[in-house]
Amino acid sequence: MWTEVDKTVKQWLKETRVSILEALEHTLNIDTKSNANDLVTNVDKETEQFFVSRIKEHYPQHKIVGEEGFGDEVHELEGIVWIIDPIDGTMNFVHQKRNFFISIGILEDGIGKLGYLYDVILDELYCASKGEGAFLNDKVLPPLQQGNIEEAIIGFNPASIHSEDAASTFIPLLKDVRGARSYGSAAMEFAYVATGRMDAYISKGLSPWDFAGGKIIVEELGGIVTDLRGNPVNLLERSSILVARPGLHKKLCRYFQS
Amino acid sequence: MWTEVDKTVKQWLKETRVSILEALEHTLNIDTKSNANDLVTNVDKETEQFFVSRIKEHYPQHKIVGEEGFGDEVHELEGIVWIIDPIDGTMNFVHQKRNFFISIGILEDGIGKLGYLYDVILDELYCASKGEGAFLNDKVLPPLQQGNIEEAIIGFNPASIHSEDAASTFIPLLKDVRGARSYGSAAMEFAYVATGRMDAYISKGLSPWDFAGGKIIVEELGGIVTDLRGNPVNLLERSSILVARPGLHKKLCRYFQS
Repeated sequence: MWTEVDKTVKQWLKETRVSILEALEHTLNIDTKSNANDLVTNVDKETEQFFVSRIKEHYPQHKIVGEEGFGDEVHELEGIVWIIDPIDGTMNFVHQKRNFFISIGILEDGIGKLGYLYDVILDELYCASKGEGAFLNDKVLPPLQQGNIEEAIIGFNPASIHSEDAASTFIPLLKDVRGARSYGSAAMEFAYVATGRMDAYISKGLSPWDFAGGKIIVEELGGIVTDLRGNPVNLLERSSILVARPGLHKKLCRYFQS
Repeated sequence: MWTEVDKTVKQWLKETRVSILEALEHTLNIDTKSNANDLVTNVDKETEQFFVSRIKEHYPQHKIVGEEGFGDEVHELEGIVWIIDPIDGTMNFVHQKRNFFISIGILEDGIGKLGYLYDVILDELYCASKGEGAFLNDKVLPPLQQGNIEEAIIGFNPASIHSEDAASTFIPLLKDVRGARSYGSAAMEFAYVATGRMDAYISKGLSPWDFAGGKIIVEELGGIVTDLRGNPVNLLERSSILVARPGLHKKLCRYFQS
């Protein structure tokens, strides 16, 4: 069954790419959600609606958690659950018209089975099927190797440094690592960790649709995904996130445990 | 004359792309320079040597400032001077094999005439010829419009926040803007400002080869490039950099003047 679902998702992703590229030729309809910088567009909504209607049609037993709320009210991870972010990095989508991703995680009884991170503009699909490896388009991704702090490039949002208290946590870390990057899309940052372009990604608060797809891919490659204290994350709740190569993960946790 | 130089540079850039893509298939020879995180590879050196030998052959009167030191000792901007970074974002080049640029600025008596920022992997060439507009490949870039703080996406290196003092400068700015990004290549960040994907880019310290090409392009589009205090930058000296849309530039300066 999973092979057929996988093939179907890939087909749907290619279809949405055509619609999104076409939508980018026209004026976007931009609204805000929780605050003035929490953006949503007609394309976020239409893309989620596309997936929800297709899933309901093909897999009526499956449940859906979608960022824009067109899915179901899901309170437990029994059965098969799709967790979807139709446009991850909406601010990039609006301002840059690049560096945004479609993120999809599909779970069975809480276990990640299929994960997808799709860079729509570059047409780069990062995906994994549990136990069967992870890929960037047709290329097999190698397992993640151990890493150390001194040579690590870490991703995180500089806006996390919103107070002197927060600064005092991040300053020692920024001094110890090789470099820091910020791309404005959790899906993109997970994709960069999955491919070894970054060694870790840290976020003070993400929603399940921001990390479900990426978690499945990174874990398939041997990477570790927890909250900032090193505890497992709940796929139905907002959480801090620390994703990293094996070995490096434990070293990074120490910066956030004191 | 400038039309012919422009055509020649573009031809050379395409030639280096072939060599660099080929080099990325093999093991890189990586050294460090001023510190453990200041990387240089055989490709940085070979690319600069390529440009230096071609310029010496075609334009023996021109002077060259190159990051890797294969150019001339240049102490004044009289005549025609090329300022070259063969690989801007060497850390990205090594770790990511993407997100690195070739940056070239060509000046006559200190005035920027031609500017190039070349994203080698994406084959995207940002360029400008003074008074004749700026382009992304064959597409004309529109002039930069006024911007405001509340909707601004700014680029800067989070490693700038290396002390509580530095944090106290950046925290108010990070609270006021819409978002922050960090790409690890000054050329890439200038290219993002030139295209409006970011509204500003701030750096506490760049060398002339990091900003010469970008400055020519952004200024051609009406953007402003100064140091963090709003003073003109010297193209033969290291400098802090504040590059932004018109209007927004003055507002950003205020965060660094106190």
